[in-house]
Amino acid sequence: MKKRIENVKIAYIGGGSQGWAKRLMNDLALEARISGTVALYDIHPEAARQNAKIGNLLSEREEAVGKWTYEATGDIQEALTDADFVIISILPGSFQEMASDVHVPEKYGIYQSVGDTVGPGGMIRALRTIPIYKKIAESIKQYSPEAWVINYTNPMTLCTRTLYEVFPAIKAFGCCHEVFDVQHLLADMVEEATGEKVERRQDIHVNVIGINHFTWIDRASYQNIDLLPLYKQFALKYAETGFEKEPGSWERSVFSSANRVKFDLFNRYGLIAAAGDRHLAEFMPPVYLESPEKVTEWKFHLTPVDFRINDQQSKMERTQKAAAGEEHFELAPSGEEGVAIIAALLGLEELVTNVNVPNNGQIANLPKGAVVETNAVLRFNSVQPVLAGSLPADVHGLVSRHVANQETILRAALDENRQLALNAFINDPLVEPIGLKQAEKLFNEMMDNTKEW
Amino acid sequence: MKKRIENVKIAYIGGGSQGWAKRLMNDLALEARISGTVALYDIHPEAARQNAKIGNLLSEREEAVGKWTYEATGDIQEALTDADFVIISILPGSFQEMASDVHVPEKYGIYQSVGDTVGPGGMIRALRTIPIYKKIAESIKQYSPEAWVINYTNPMTLCTRTLYEVFPAIKAFGCCHEVFDVQHLLADMVEEATGEKVERRQDIHVNVIGINHFTWIDRASYQNIDLLPLYKQFALKYAETGFEKEPGSWERSVFSSANRVKFDLFNRYGLIAAAGDRHLAEFMPPVYLESPEKVTEWKFHLTPVDFRINDQQSKMERTQKAAAGEEHFELAPSGEEGVAIIAALLGLEELVTNVNVPNNGQIANLPKGAVVETNAVLRFNSVQPVLAGSLPADVHGLVSRHVANQETILRAALDENRQLALNAFINDPLVEPIGLKQAEKLFNEMMDNTKEW
Amino acid sequence: MKKRIENVKIAYIGGGSQGWAKRLMNDLALEARISGTVALYDIHPEAARQNAKIGNLLSEREEAVGKWTYEATGDIQEALTDADFVIISILPGSFQEMASDVHVPEKYGIYQSVGDTVGPGGMIRALRTIPIYKKIAESIKQYSPEAWVINYTNPMTLCTRTLYEVFPAIKAFGCCHEVFDVQHLLADMVEEATGEKVERRQDIHVNVIGINHFTWIDRASYQNIDLLPLYKQFALKYAETGFEKEPGSWERSVFSSANRVKFDLFNRYGLIAAAGDRHLAEFMPPVYLESPEKVTEWKFHLTPVDFRINDQQSKMERTQKAAAGEEHFELAPSGEEGVAIIAALLGLEELVTNVNVPNNGQIANLPKGAVVETNAVLRFNSVQPVLAGSLPADVHGLVSRHVANQETILRAALDENRQLALNAFINDPLVEPIGLKQAEKLFNEMMDNTKEW
Amino acid sequence: MKKRIENVKIAYIGGGSQGWAKRLMNDLALEARISGTVALYDIHPEAARQNAKIGNLLSEREEAVGKWTYEATGDIQEALTDADFVIISILPGSFQEMASDVHVPEKYGIYQSVGDTVGPGGMIRALRTIPIYKKIAESIKQYSPEAWVINYTNPMTLCTRTLYEVFPAIKAFGCCHEVFDVQHLLADMVEEATGEKVERRQDIHVNVIGINHFTWIDRASYQNIDLLPLYKQFALKYAETGFEKEPGSWERSVFSSANRVKFDLFNRYGLIAAAGDRHLAEFMPPVYLESPEKVTEWKFHLTPVDFRINDQQSKMERTQKAAAGEEHFELAPSGEEGVAIIAALLGLEELVTNVNVPNNGQIANLPKGAVVETNAVLRFNSVQPVLAGSLPADVHGLVSRHVANQETILRAALDENRQLALNAFINDPLVEPIGLKQAEKLFNEMMDNTKEW
Ligand SMILES: [Mg+2]
Ligand SMILES: [Mg+2]
Ligand SMILES: [Mg+2]
Ligand SMILES: [Mg+2]
Repeated sequence: MKKRIENVKIAYIGGGSQGWAKRLMNDLALEARISGTVALYDIHPEAARQNAKIGNLLSEREEAVGKWTYEATGDIQEALTDADFVIISILPGSFQEMASDVHVPEKYGIYQSVGDTVGPGGMIRALRTIPIYKKIAESIKQYSPEAWVINYTNPMTLCTRTLYEVFPAIKAFGCCHEVFDVQHLLADMVEEATGEKVERRQDIHVNVIGINHFTWIDRASYQNIDLLPLYKQFALKYAETGFEKEPGSWERSVFSSANRVKFDLFNRYGLIAAAGDRHLAEFMPPVYLESPEKVTEWKFHLTPVDFRINDQQSKMERTQKAAAGEEHFELAPSGEEGVAIIAALLGLEELVTNVNVPNNGQIANLPKGAVVETNAVLRFNSVQPVLAGSLPADVHGLVSRHVANQETILRAALDENRQLALNAFINDPLVEPIGLKQAEKLFNEMMDNTKEW
Repeated sequence: MKKRIENVKIAYIGGGSQGWAKRLMNDLALEARISGTVALYDIHPEAARQNAKIGNLLSEREEAVGKWTYEATGDIQEALTDADFVIISILPGSFQEMASDVHVPEKYGIYQSVGDTVGPGGMIRALRTIPIYKKIAESIKQYSPEAWVINYTNPMTLCTRTLYEVFPAIKAFGCCHEVFDVQHLLADMVEEATGEKVERRQDIHVNVIGINHFTWIDRASYQNIDLLPLYKQFALKYAETGFEKEPGSWERSVFSSANRVKFDLFNRYGLIAAAGDRHLAEFMPPVYLESPEKVTEWKFHLTPVDFRINDQQSKMERTQKAAAGEEHFELAPSGEEGVAIIAALLGLEELVTNVNVPNNGQIANLPKGAVVETNAVLRFNSVQPVLAGSLPADVHGLVSRHVANQETILRAALDENRQLALNAFINDPLVEPIGLKQAEKLFNEMMDNTKEW
Repeated sequence: MKKRIENVKIAYIGGGSQGWAKRLMNDLALEARISGTVALYDIHPEAARQNAKIGNLLSEREEAVGKWTYEATGDIQEALTDADFVIISILPGSFQEMASDVHVPEKYGIYQSVGDTVGPGGMIRALRTIPIYKKIAESIKQYSPEAWVINYTNPMTLCTRTLYEVFPAIKAFGCCHEVFDVQHLLADMVEEATGEKVERRQDIHVNVIGINHFTWIDRASYQNIDLLPLYKQFALKYAETGFEKEPGSWERSVFSSANRVKFDLFNRYGLIAAAGDRHLAEFMPPVYLESPEKVTEWKFHLTPVDFRINDQQSKMERTQKAAAGEEHFELAPSGEEGVAIIAALLGLEELVTNVNVPNNGQIANLPKGAVVETNAVLRFNSVQPVLAGSLPADVHGLVSRHVANQETILRAALDENRQLALNAFINDPLVEPIGLKQAEKLFNEMMDNTKEW
Repeated sequence: MKKRIENVKIAYIGGGSQGWAKRLMNDLALEARISGTVALYDIHPEAARQNAKIGNLLSEREEAVGKWTYEATGDIQEALTDADFVIISILPGSFQEMASDVHVPEKYGIYQSVGDTVGPGGMIRALRTIPIYKKIAESIKQYSPEAWVINYTNPMTLCTRTLYEVFPAIKAFGCCHEVFDVQHLLADMVEEATGEKVERRQDIHVNVIGINHFTWIDRASYQNIDLLPLYKQFALKYAETGFEKEPGSWERSVFSSANRVKFDLFNRYGLIAAAGDRHLAEFMPPVYLESPEKVTEWKFHLTPVDFRINDQQSKMERTQKAAAGEEHFELAPSGEEGVAIIAALLGLEELVTNVNVPNNGQIANLPKGAVVETNAVLRFNSVQPVLAGSLPADVHGLVSRHVANQETILRAALDENRQLALNAFINDPLVEPIGLKQAEKLFNEMMDNTKEW
């Protein structure tokens, strides 16, 4: 007989979210072994209230085997008090600020496919987000120091790093699904090569080593098949055309790609880059992001903020309908791991998956304290990274540059040292080619668009 | 459909063994997914030949779903060539030497319950074993550098340490079942406390941190139950009487105990010592091993070498019978994990279990390079220790003393530096109380009994 | 022309001291390049006042080329405010407590030659001293965070460790003259071997590696002479008789020895132990401290607390006379380095000498953060340890045991965890031989004699 | 009386050198305390023979108080056998290859002021030099494993790194005078600010932290003056004009500059870059090396290889004259430290100076094993780096990029992995702006010009 655990409390910071919150509610409803309360905290309480309504409606449905009570609140203390878990998934700043992050650099010839992690957009976004996370960390320290904290916000690395800098004893880690997509790609590759169907993404075993959105796989296997030699052929075969399960599908969504960036990185560096091409491209000099045309050639997309605004708008409309009970949606696993992670931390299963936590030796040649992404064993009240090894010298060069920049941005934000921020900014591989003078001008323009700095 | 993997080659060094070899053959016969050849190498080829006969007879039995061919050889090159796995389980030295290890110190008032790990016996045994392991490591480097090497020989730490010292790129680790017994004890505790039956030992999740036979558990859980507070009550309740599932059973076997040493260590140090009392007692000053009478009071046993000789004799007789097909034994899981480990390394399952490998950060406050025991994730062609954390200051004091002694013994054996060996010897907690002069005398007497030093 | 630096402020915590304070005043008077104010703070303000009088009288003397104003105060804030340097040299606890430290263990067969560093006395003294140092660290953090802090109090390691634990940004280090005496011994050895006079102690270059009062020299030279081979002969030659410049002189002072302990340690471990025999003996099992008779055979002394009380009494009488201007004493270099160190930190010279600071890699195989003793380069506002290397495995075993005990005692004192303190206590090499039960009894008796615990 | 040390043997690899060899002979002649033999080894034995003649003529002169015998040899075994010191100062490759290093990149818009350390030229030079150093290391291991090895060849970091990679027990370090020039600059600054004459360069105390030619000073003092605040004013004051002791003098020599690069780096990063502007500029993106015109604006020079060829020609003519006894030159200290270093290692003095050795903790946030430049204490047979601390986050970003590239180049050269070399090449800040395609073309062209790859 399987255990049932009741009265679990989850505090959700950013509980008015239009995306993650729904996926979580969906997955919670599908997990029969756990029930309790979700406190949805948001600086936009109305959005949280709508999500609470949707959640409670959902919980009433018969097929919802996991029963939860959703409560919206604008008071972080209330949300955090007695929480067993804290989920953080916020949008740091306005769409206007995000538009500046992504599009102002275009005037200087810098194109960004996402703009939320590194590159000029990611850095300015980080400068804006770190003070918010500083406050969140202080609240958690005060109101729920024993809770497990799961971060989904980008820039993942610096959000998680800030939590630990402010409250070193925090039990926090960051989660990202980019590695999962690469596991799916490897599963597709196995099926192509062997004709055999891979049943579960999790059966593609990978060693994850790097930093979020720029992490790498240096060992991969499916059962007794070593996937690296297979990938070597695969990456060569599809270097020019790219690979998609459904050919042409990359063109249909701004979030999709044909994996050409990943293949090119493998052909040059010999490791599998473990994130979507949109993210990977931003960590490199403008090879893949030289121009919008080149982006198309490499078969991925820039994500205009207009798209995000429209997307948000339509999501909000659906939210309103759903909250009013006017829209029915089917329950189905979201593909996210949040609820499986919660189940593992509650002791219901053992889970080996990738997380973002401060380096304590799991990556031998990255600095201690830097937030890195590797596998970890998750069990009752425990997240233990595995020793992932060392990055090879050339990849180490690519990754450690961003690690240094991120550490510089952290210091700049916490000490409010603008020169330090600029020094990181000009060391970014997308920024460097425009030269010091232009970079400084761009920096100032973007900083002017970022409030409260 | 599950994978079947054929043509696996296992080289077994010490293949004439009367204990481990049988358990392995038994477990291999019960694993349907793997088949291949086992090369039994031994310096006593006749013993290996008998085991080969037993193995091949076993393989013919219908209920033996794993089919293996056993071959005996006295040529290590032949055994190792093309091996996928190397298992090492040898008896280093003669029973006469072992009798000296265990019993000569008794003349000086030093009692040892095992005499194979630390203490005067363990140290002298190590000095004798390291040169043997040096040769084994050189052979593996030459003939099977890519094979996975699983060590079962004691002293575990120094055997494994020698393999890495001589051949740093070796893929080796040491396995020991002592932690399993503690998991069984914790399962019994859970059953007593909750009335609920724990189905699998592996469902008792433990964080393992220390060195072989002196490793510790600082976190333990069963489902969502934190076992440390439970153990606190348990250790207090049974401090005086000890705990056994069947009361009194400890008296029936020299290998058994009533766990009083473990409870006493918990009551003083706050961590669960994760080995049998016989082993644990030898790492401490003579609190538990003050005298044979005290040993009985603490409800465990000294293991006289006479017992081992008789035991070996009766095992050999059974071996002869079995090899002649005159003895029938039922196939049943041995409780060892060797075959599960092989299955994991072949990619058939993911396994989290405790292993002994050089410290590369898995224990933050033990020296890099020292062989330590922690959990690891085992997958296809991969053993990755998890970050186990740090030992608390007082337990660190107990453990690091032995780590330093073991490093000293290693250097002494490799450099043939007798003074260095003596310096380790007198720093052992069982030896120290007899004083420098007596210790030196004992050391010389024991060394004289140890050939080729 | 040499620089003169005026208006330096030194705060002296323990400014009523009968020993160190005088030596400092003496050496300050002999240093022409620096002048300023010394604030003598003491919990016994009268003693500080008398020292201030002596200091001011001294300063008036013509031959006192360094001119200082001495002020006594009972207010630590006043003493620390604006201080450039803070010197700490206190007597932690009463003579009654010290008598318990040193003599109560004798009832249990444990003899201590000093009782202020390790051993039962050193440990209990540490438990009493750490809370005092916690307060001092907090005061320095508040009133003089930029000052250089020089500690002379024992137990040196734990006093310095506490300062850093409480105020990690402190600029503190500990100073001890024991290494100087070993340099003098080596100079004597050089003179005996070569007939050549060594002019300055500092010309005996040594690499210092270890912890205070148990530090070691693994390289030593005088000009182009390697002193290790010379010492090998020397230690053998004088193993039985000991060596003294003036034969027999060790008998005249409780602080003297004939270096037999040092020679014996060298003959066994191959390194030069770099402290007086009285200190060294206490770090080892009771080889040298087996009994008062053995101590005499080894040609050093136990230091009875009665002697200290009488000595203190006679010093106080001389202090009173000196304060009244009734006693004239000649100015002469004390042999201490405190003033040379102050001069170096003021930028007047570059000094390479041994200091006690947290390990940040200067000793590769001792834990980071533990306070260790090695050489450092002292310059203007800068103390930089040199990389001293690693201790050999056997000596590492001796030293790391005390490092672990000290860390345990620190935690015990800061967390007021009596069991933890006991766990360190029973792991001390002088305590271990009496057995757990006796040790616990002794511990309780000593703790009862120690106020405020 | 000062010691005299005779019969010292120095092996000079590259003993036909037109520059360093002369300076060494000159300084040896001025050091009265040491005498012996110098074996000049060169792959051009005639050049070595001429230097030997010059050296021996020099030694006959009366004012040459240090008497040495010079011997030329083309046999490295002969040169190394019995050597106490090995000096390595070679020109790796031909002027033709050097011309390719420096000038081929100009076709791609990449300008280099030196081309021997990093940048495209430095990297290709390294690929060519590492195999030579591999052989030298093997010879030293075989013929003079106990000798002290002093490297002067560039790329300093990778030459020294290769020596240790091939022969880990080597006693080697690299020496470079760039820091000395910065000390002279600081002395000039002190004189300008205070009117006081700084007598000795060595009285400017600096903490050196970084890698050769890109090392930094984060603390500097003269007596009790903190030089950082002074430098802050200084760098601002002379940011535009530059500073020279004799205004305009930078224009007279290709090796000179007006320190504008150093001032600009300080104004942006807050640390004193501790090398000549020509070297510093090459470690940064093309801010200072954007074009020949910009170089002139920044008041330093490109060094055309033509200049080097002519310079070499005229030096060789002077060498011939000197060897024929036709040219008289005055003995005068060269400003180099080689002989002072030899004196220190012979035990004649204690010296604190900057050296290049593998990182063993002296720089906390650079990887272990990377060759770094910091201060060290030099004594008899001993070089001990001091703990230099950590680089601030932004400077760490600049430096660690080159550390990663250098490690990649090392691996590429030792494993003959051309892709790896290219991966380092395109990650160089001077190369990155030309884009991947052009960079690859340039790489191939330069590699074609480099023999034996
Ligand atoms: Mg993500
Ligand atoms: Mg075992
Ligand atoms: Mg002392
Ligand atoms: Mg140079």
